[in-house]
Amino acid sequence: MHDLAGEDPDVRFSPYCWRTRFALAHKGLPVETVPWRFTDHDAIAFSGQGKVPVIQDDGKTVFDSWTIATYLEDQVPAPTLFGGTTGRAHALFVNAWADSVLVGGIARFIVRDLLDVIAPKDRDYFRSSREARFGRSLEEVQAGREDRLTVFRDALLPVRLVLRRQQWLGGAAPSYADHIIAGTLMWPRCASRFELLDRNDPVAEWQDRMLDLYGGLGRSAKRP
Amino acid sequence: MHDLAGEDPDVRFSPYCWRTRFALAHKGLPVETVPWRFTDHDAIAFSGQGKVPVIQDDGKTVFDSWTIATYLEDQVPAPTLFGGTTGRAHALFVNAWADSVLVGGIARFIVRDLLDVIAPKDRDYFRSSREARFGRSLEEVQAGREDRLTVFRDALLPVRLVLRRQQWLGGAAPSYADHIIAGTLMWPRCASRFELLDRNDPVAEWQDRMLDLYGGLGRSAKRP
Repeated sequence: MHDLAGEDPDVRFSPYCWRTRFALAHKGLPVETVPWRFTDHDAIAFSGQGKVPVIQDDGKTVFDSWTIATYLEDQVPAPTLFGGTTGRAHALFVNAWADSVLVGGIARFIVRDLLDVIAPKDRDYFRSSREARFGRSLEEVQAGREDRLTVFRDALLPVRLVLRRQQWLGGAAPSYADHIIAGTLMWPRCASRFELLDRNDPVAEWQDRMLDLYGGLGRSAKRP
Repeated sequence: MHDLAGEDPDVRFSPYCWRTRFALAHKGLPVETVPWRFTDHDAIAFSGQGKVPVIQDDGKTVFDSWTIATYLEDQVPAPTLFGGTTGRAHALFVNAWADSVLVGGIARFIVRDLLDVIAPKDRDYFRSSREARFGRSLEEVQAGREDRLTVFRDALLPVRLVLRRQQWLGGAAPSYADHIIAGTLMWPRCASRFELLDRNDPVAEWQDRMLDLYGGLGRSAKRP
């Protein structure tokens, strides 16, 4: 698996690669990760596209975290990530919410911190592509983040409401819905020291449980 | 089933009652609805609480749209609403998103229109309770709604992203996830003439398909 890495090859912070890491761990599948940087175009050219995660399994290449999750579920049905076709369809909504609301929301808190974590050779690309996307400098995007915390935390209300009724997004046991959101939250955790969650938030308590799963896979991840 | 009604008893606009109506139709279960107004406390006192939907089935009383959906699934497994326990757990996220983002968002577009639709005896209660909630008059809450349409439509992005990949929230067939969102959208449809969706939005196209399901249950609903 090609996995986005920082200047320190042990710092892995991609919200999409983390979804895949959790899904692989859930299935009990061993994985060898290859540190990859944004500008390592040639390294994943074999996949026919330019983003990670990319996995290679028994001669097959699969990319895109959602596609990888469905591939894993089809190849190794148990323990399940989705609990069937309707569960898979419903998880796509969680994925879409995370990709839009969560990734978009978090970016504004850590995008300047990311610049310090990524490999020096990636920095020009990262700054220019992200500044074009936001229409402002990375410093301006991230400025005043403390004042925006309440709005961000309020946007997590759907997760909070679910956790009032069940221990995991997946119900009585973790599912890929948990991997999606916990994987996304590994991004700020591994790219910044900024605390996005109130530690008394049920979402933070759930995140703590997620960090301990799979032998502490999330907990032991290197932070900057 | 006690179902929230307007001054015209045939106008039914509760986003929660509509979820239940769709779920019952999905199961092919006949239902007799009883028009209910906000101030009809005595009529549902038997349920031990004060909100609709409330269903009575074979001597049992069940309230809360989510609880009713799980009750229906347990009583009549096919056709399924959730596709199993994980599908049910994942649908709870859709429910939580609809209850917070969607209901909260829509209210600001139609809350003054609602006042004209509900029964005259409900109007004092409705105005005072909603104005206390918003901290402003109903007229102020609804004012300038055209200018807020873009932000609201952007908030539907998770639904739009899902519909890029599959025909229904439930995948290849409608599920309770579709009922949750379509039911919520019956609220503005049946309480206002204000158009929340751009007709070219894939969400509007999906809503059109939902309106035609179950013999046109949604399509034939009386509008103000």
